[in-house]
Amino acid sequence: MQRIQSLAMALPSKFMDKVMNIGKSITKLGKDDPRRVTHSIKVGLALTLVSLLYYSRTLFDGFGVAGMWAVLTVVVVFEFTVGGTLCKSLNRGIATFLAGALGLGAERLASLFGPKGEPIVIGLFVFLLATASTFSRFFPKIKARYDYGVLIFILTFSLVAVSGVRVEEIIPLAHQRLSTIIVGGSICIVISLCIFPVWAGEDLHNLISNNIEKIGNYLEGFGGEYFQSREDVSNNNNDKLFLQGYKSVLNSKSTEDSMANLARWEPRHGKFGFRHPWNQYLKIGTLSRQCAYHLEALNACMNTNIQVPEEFMNKIKEPCTKISEESAKALKSLSSSIKTMTDPSPANVHFENSKNEVNNLKIAMKCWSLEHADLLAIVPAATVASTLIEIVKCVDNLRESVSELANLAHFKAVEPSVSPEKPQLLHRGAVNPVLDVDNEDHVVITINENPTDSPEIKMKAQDPNPNSIR
Amino acid sequence: MQRIQSLAMALPSKFMDKVMNIGKSITKLGKDDPRRVTHSIKVGLALTLVSLLYYSRTLFDGFGVAGMWAVLTVVVVFEFTVGGTLCKSLNRGIATFLAGALGLGAERLASLFGPKGEPIVIGLFVFLLATASTFSRFFPKIKARYDYGVLIFILTFSLVAVSGVRVEEIIPLAHQRLSTIIVGGSICIVISLCIFPVWAGEDLHNLISNNIEKIGNYLEGFGGEYFQSREDVSNNNNDKLFLQGYKSVLNSKSTEDSMANLARWEPRHGKFGFRHPWNQYLKIGTLSRQCAYHLEALNACMNTNIQVPEEFMNKIKEPCTKISEESAKALKSLSSSIKTMTDPSPANVHFENSKNEVNNLKIAMKCWSLEHADLLAIVPAATVASTLIEIVKCVDNLRESVSELANLAHFKAVEPSVSPEKPQLLHRGAVNPVLDVDNEDHVVITINENPTDSPEIKMKAQDPNPNSIR
Repeated sequence: MQRIQSLAMALPSKFMDKVMNIGKSITKLGKDDPRRVTHSIKVGLALTLVSLLYYSRTLFDGFGVAGMWAVLTVVVVFEFTVGGTLCKSLNRGIATFLAGALGLGAERLASLFGPKGEPIVIGLFVFLLATASTFSRFFPKIKARYDYGVLIFILTFSLVAVSGVRVEEIIPLAHQRLSTIIVGGSICIVISLCIFPVWAGEDLHNLISNNIEKIGNYLEGFGGEYFQSREDVSNNNNDKLFLQGYKSVLNSKSTEDSMANLARWEPRHGKFGFRHPWNQYLKIGTLSRQCAYHLEALNACMNTNIQVPEEFMNKIKEPCTKISEESAKALKSLSSSIKTMTDPSPANVHFENSKNEVNNLKIAMKCWSLEHADLLAIVPAATVASTLIEIVKCVDNLRESVSELANLAHFKAVEPSVSPEKPQLLHRGAVNPVLDVDNEDHVVITINENPTDSPEIKMKAQDPNPNSIR
Repeated sequence: MQRIQSLAMALPSKFMDKVMNIGKSITKLGKDDPRRVTHSIKVGLALTLVSLLYYSRTLFDGFGVAGMWAVLTVVVVFEFTVGGTLCKSLNRGIATFLAGALGLGAERLASLFGPKGEPIVIGLFVFLLATASTFSRFFPKIKARYDYGVLIFILTFSLVAVSGVRVEEIIPLAHQRLSTIIVGGSICIVISLCIFPVWAGEDLHNLISNNIEKIGNYLEGFGGEYFQSREDVSNNNNDKLFLQGYKSVLNSKSTEDSMANLARWEPRHGKFGFRHPWNQYLKIGTLSRQCAYHLEALNACMNTNIQVPEEFMNKIKEPCTKISEESAKALKSLSSSIKTMTDPSPANVHFENSKNEVNNLKIAMKCWSLEHADLLAIVPAATVASTLIEIVKCVDNLRESVSELANLAHFKAVEPSVSPEKPQLLHRGAVNPVLDVDNEDHVVITINENPTDSPEIKMKAQDPNPNSIR
């Protein structure tokens, strides 16, 4: 009896907990990306609009039941991104038109075979067309861009071919369907384009840039984490979280592919022209993943328990930390150059620095003798070193690929004399505020009077680490 | 003039080339997976059936235009896999029913507000429901399983709520739509289930097993490729192709996720029960990818140009080759144990062998002195060694995960005395036919009389490499 009572007491509180949890996850979903909320409102708006038009008969007067096609179109066609909405609207419109015409022709042709032959011929047509169209959906290119169009094509063709005998006036029917679809599609396109538009292209652009930044973040923290964790293991786990950011890069391929497909449907907008080189983004994405795989290898080294001898660690600590830091700077500079669509050459300085450090690391390793410890003990650290060298190669590939993008997409050139410093300062991640700054100290930036001097060489002459400027 | 002529000549031949190319890619698409052809024919069949039913009025007599919903349902609901078809059919049916009932209620409620208030109230209902439902589609779980249902829910609710005033008899309308959807959905389900069914679960099962095998293939060839390529670089590029197989594993996450989602909708079939542990497959998939990332690191080492000193290479060649071979055997045994759903313990022997070889490798590295060469020169090979050690850890994780799957899915136990040998022989990849076999030599397999003895220990006592048995 008591058990039932406590159960009855527990039920509402459990229910409340569930409701609270759902509420929390709803707010989290909305906070993570507020565009989700606006998108939902936009869909609600478009649907209410078209429903009320249908209800009030103002637009669809005379269309009768056909007005529901407008409602149907809005529900099915309205996608999160402008590209998605355009892709589906155009696919739907064009496929309906083509299939309608073809279905009409098929029906007329079939009617020549007399009342007995007609259903057989129509059945044959439907079968052949449905089979062929369904098979065409397995082509990766058609699947990516016209999948929905093929679906609507099959649908409309069957409906028109079959219903031809039923409803006598096939032309007004086709006209009705097409115009209602156009009304529904236009409402979707207008709302999607005009009220807080979400561009698939911009999303892809940001995703690619953020992925490079995430890899940069890992590398920025790696040196400190790997070489210090041996000294004090206590704060080991606190910092690990920020080292997990790159994991999402590993599996971003399918997202990137689908975004690039949608981006191709989008018109000129903001910084993106009509023939923006979306394919180049995919190439950069692939190179980023390549880099992220190496981070996985680094991560594995971080978790091994073998105690590497202090002497060896001290020997490679500086070059390794610097390689990882300079690569991080180069990557962050590349990321910000993509984000702001400016010339990516400021990354070159950091890349050159990291290449120099690779040489230092190689020298350090060349001079090392195994008197102090055996090879086995230093292998984990040597693996870290060689992985870092591989990462520098990856950064080089990324750098080339980004400057190719800069060429193709006509990124803004930065004025050679002052600006190369800017992106670094803007995007160095956590620049700790320097307290107690001595105001009398000034940084002397020599304005280059020879315009043919590359900013790269000039930058190297200055202190490569702006943090140390005081 | 001549140019135009030659252009006119060139056009048809170019056109022919295009047609030939398309023809080739069609046959390739069909040959790669013949189920694509049968799927297309199945869709054609279902659509012809429902179209002719609609045409002949036998089933939809009295339904009028509503019969087209059956055609629409078939086109939209018929998916490649049984799981996909079931998921969409059930989503569509249930969502239509719920939304229809709710729409009816909303319409009745709105009518209480008089002819002026009604459109406002209906508009408000449509707006709120569409907004909330659209937002719910952002929840990953709803997106994965009920996305289509939510779409149909919004659609049906709006149509019913709005059309309520127009068509007086809303109950027969709802009845018509539901029954036509049921007819369309049933035709799809029956054809999808009965004619060459494609099971998403089986596909996932095979994908996971194949991915492990691909990693095994790479490792099987790696040792020979890495250590021999230094001797003769000429045949370097010929063999590289078979080393690329694992690349598809890197990006298989999204495919695995969607297949697992569809597999959950499928009824008991073949070897798969109703509550088959699909989630465990996803875990194994993640571990396989982890392993594939290490292969990327190995691949990077393969492509470095640094000449590692012969002495060191000779020192680690044997243990490294054996680790990679034994890991390959373990992985292939795991793969075949998944494929055949038998006990995965035969892999343990190979895993133990590879662990022993790891110790040998460690000893080889421990004894190495840097008299002959500097550290820098041997780092690439040392990295290979340490990556192989990491791979053995991955194989261990995979082994555990597969035996967890074996427990959850009740894999068949193999008889302890003879069978542990079997999977090795069955799945050793390329077992070269041994010519000139001396028939008088026999392999003596000692039948174990102590049933508590683990097959593992017994196996180790035998020759671990069945190839060497003559």
